[in-house]
Amino acid sequence: MGTKRQIKLGAILHGVGGNISGWRHPDAITDASVNFELYKKWTQKAEAGKFDFVFIADGLYITEKSIPHFLNRFEPLTILSALAGVSSKIGLVGTLSTSYSEPFTVSRQFASLDMISRGRAGWNVVTSPLEGSALNFGKTEQQHPAHSERYRIADEYLEVATGLWSSWEEDAFVRNKETGVFFDPAKMHTLNHKGSHFAVKGPLNIARSRQGETVIFQAGASESGKQFAAKWANAIFTGQETQDDAKAYYDDVKSRAAALGRKPEEIVILPGIGPIIGSTQEEAERKYEEIANLVSIDKALDFLGRFYEHHDFTQYPLDEPFPELGELGRNSFRSATDRMKARAKEEGLTLRQVALQVATPKPTFLGTPEAVADKLQAWFEAGAADGFIVGAAGPNGLEEFVDHVVPILQARGLFRSEYEADTLRGNLGLPIPVNRHAAALPNR
Amino acid sequence: MGTKRQIKLGAILHGVGGNISGWRHPDAITDASVNFELYKKWTQKAEAGKFDFVFIADGLYITEKSIPHFLNRFEPLTILSALAGVSSKIGLVGTLSTSYSEPFTVSRQFASLDMISRGRAGWNVVTSPLEGSALNFGKTEQQHPAHSERYRIADEYLEVATGLWSSWEEDAFVRNKETGVFFDPAKMHTLNHKGSHFAVKGPLNIARSRQGETVIFQAGASESGKQFAAKWANAIFTGQETQDDAKAYYDDVKSRAAALGRKPEEIVILPGIGPIIGSTQEEAERKYEEIANLVSIDKALDFLGRFYEHHDFTQYPLDEPFPELGELGRNSFRSATDRMKARAKEEGLTLRQVALQVATPKPTFLGTPEAVADKLQAWFEAGAADGFIVGAAGPNGLEEFVDHVVPILQARGLFRSEYEADTLRGNLGLPIPVNRHAAALPNR
Ligand SMILES: Cc1cc2nc3c(=O)[nH]c(=O)nc-3n(C[C@H](O)[C@H](O)[C@H](O)COP(=O)(O)O)c2cc1C
Ligand SMILES: Cc1cc2nc3c(=O)[nH]c(=O)nc-3n(C[C@H](O)[C@H](O)[C@H](O)COP(=O)(O)O)c2cc1C
Repeated sequence: MGTKRQIKLGAILHGVGGNISGWRHPDAITDASVNFELYKKWTQKAEAGKFDFVFIADGLYITEKSIPHFLNRFEPLTILSALAGVSSKIGLVGTLSTSYSEPFTVSRQFASLDMISRGRAGWNVVTSPLEGSALNFGKTEQQHPAHSERYRIADEYLEVATGLWSSWEEDAFVRNKETGVFFDPAKMHTLNHKGSHFAVKGPLNIARSRQGETVIFQAGASESGKQFAAKWANAIFTGQETQDDAKAYYDDVKSRAAALGRKPEEIVILPGIGPIIGSTQEEAERKYEEIANLVSIDKALDFLGRFYEHHDFTQYPLDEPFPELGELGRNSFRSATDRMKARAKEEGLTLRQVALQVATPKPTFLGTPEAVADKLQAWFEAGAADGFIVGAAGPNGLEEFVDHVVPILQARGLFRSEYEADTLRGNLGLPIPVNRHAAALPNR
Repeated sequence: MGTKRQIKLGAILHGVGGNISGWRHPDAITDASVNFELYKKWTQKAEAGKFDFVFIADGLYITEKSIPHFLNRFEPLTILSALAGVSSKIGLVGTLSTSYSEPFTVSRQFASLDMISRGRAGWNVVTSPLEGSALNFGKTEQQHPAHSERYRIADEYLEVATGLWSSWEEDAFVRNKETGVFFDPAKMHTLNHKGSHFAVKGPLNIARSRQGETVIFQAGASESGKQFAAKWANAIFTGQETQDDAKAYYDDVKSRAAALGRKPEEIVILPGIGPIIGSTQEEAERKYEEIANLVSIDKALDFLGRFYEHHDFTQYPLDEPFPELGELGRNSFRSATDRMKARAKEEGLTLRQVALQVATPKPTFLGTPEAVADKLQAWFEAGAADGFIVGAAGPNGLEEFVDHVVPILQARGLFRSEYEADTLRGNLGLPIPVNRHAAALPNR
């Protein structure tokens, strides 16, 4: 490659917003989570800003207490496919759970999105933290697989998915009108997978895309999550809030990957950030206050409960130290809840403080465009990140980031001014994976 | 409505074609089944021709002997979503099997397609005729549910799907920034379904579309298939080849629907046709010969086998009467195989004749644009059809139909010149279904 290492950027599209009360902002479009024109506009804006990809998060269980965006939103595969039709370079990454789906179907749907978009699909593999998900799929909450079991399922699931993606070698489709040969049967492979969780014969009824296979994203942060990421992920979406934490995570996962025989540069590590930009530091602070003030304490307690298996936090006094919760929260959002508990203890926070902070955390990246760009550069150059996933706080956050921060990064040579490629792997600098069967026959 | 009853039209988009050798045609684009630009062009052509919808068929199991289009094609939900982004009036109908999927996921994906397209989604509910499908979903072929069981599963599946689509009343989302009320909890409904095949709690995490619910299509023709259609279908895709058969089917299903308390005009019956158009009858005949001559007898025997649980027909003499097959073929494509056997007996056909006829049946609708229009009109006016699904034979069949047949139908007042609506229900003349819970409270 030889070219200078550059920052990679993704944009989270999350409708009315990733927090409880963002929809109440004066500029917010309140049906944003089911508004295709808006998703299209955002995607085209991100593409104009040369972002690597847009990202759609997901969940499989709601209750009355879920945040507004979760109640009524697009399903990832369908919205990403629709966006494929109205974009041409930007990657299209969506979350899908391996705990409540069929590998044949999901491998096929991502392969189809990848084919439609001519090599721009990405799959954020999650295992469904919420045990309530079980209730929508024929199971009881007790039958929701435990954390480590979920990762074992995910591991076998990816064996199957990558196996199905090798059903057809690159040159399997001959399509010779004269001879009447449509494909070469020697280059079609039947998987015949029989494992502990899945039995899938194959072959898949769709071929490989221009980028070979859908890019695998991962967002786990626990021990098993990191091990899974080191083994399977091409890109990792992380949640650390400080440069030191991000750096520790980065080094940890890259060395796990190296220990598994992978090249560390072939895993792109991308902390999620929620930047707030102002023309001055004070304006950015004011913007944050405006967002934080929209949250009420009861909504914040509800929201907090979701991380702890829907625990009811109204039973504790608000202005006393954050309660002792034992193992609660460790089966679902383990890394987030472990961090939350530790921080509450260290900083001596009350329940009210924790709840409000979790509901509208003050962004690490807050200030003028230059200040935000400086911090992005610092993380990037310190080896705490290969890039960032921008889940802008506030309704116009993505536009502001594209218009004001991106040009600074470009001027500094830290970010592309033109796409290098029109596949997601191409832009992320990832190699095209070799078909399993072609790889096994190097001399053919 | 008071306006004159008009023909409804759908277009099957099937890439390299619904037959074995269509891809060998000189004009055929051989990667058509995975070519998004082509699907986009066809959809925009069908929309310019004021078609009600485009239709994507599907299947879940392939072998070396599958026809070219089945080996490597787009998955319906993803391609339809992509087409939603590049069209604005035409309906988007896709096949999805109730035998190998989860009702929560599928209800949600169709609802999302419906929301993205602003009310243009349709779901062709099938039960997966091929027992090999089981092998891709953790089961053995013996565990593939039997015909009647598949329809019982489908019935419960639609109970769940329509229940989930009633999770949110039309006016559930208040979105009042002042009061901070995003939705009215009294208008959110948790399904709590527990049945013999499914247990799904709900609510669904997406609201109703502008057409209320995705339009239900159905293509079954057996006794249980017709009964299922009479109960659930808004539109029916049928396969009769003669006007008399079509009329008998039409009357049968409409009276079954009436017996179940439904209005017969609220089920639109649409025979699938594969028209071949020429500027003269002779030119149309020549076009048919050109297509038929592309087929070889061994490919035709393979293709025939698929209808009979992958039976090997090479074991029989080619030029003797079609063999006696007993129950073979009745578990999968029952209505098709019953018809095939009966016809072979009646007309004293040989195996070769049956195989070639099945591989490239001579279309009922073949001739000049006027002749084809006359026949469409005859079927329509005789009450044998409410419209047609055009799966044009030959690579340019859809364009030819839009350019030459549609204007004749329009001139005769038999087909719209402008869309009546921008939802699929609106164009098909179907009412918007009332939310289950709103319906239960007429005085609210
Ligand atoms: C930045 C970020 C984004 C995530 N997005 C999703 C998501 O869209 N859907 C989901 O179910 N979980 C999501 N998660 C949760 C992870 O899948 C995972 O459950 C969580 O990080 C806990 O890690 P662990 O599974 O290794 O314990 C996300 C996590 C992080 C850090
Ligand atoms: C015009 C037509 C189109 C069909 N399309 C599909 C399809 O896309 N996928 C599928 O699995 N089956 C399809 N079928 C098969 C039907 O779902 C059904 O299995 C078949 O008509 C036999 O009817 P029965 O199930 O009532 O016996 C189609 C059938 C007809 C007549």
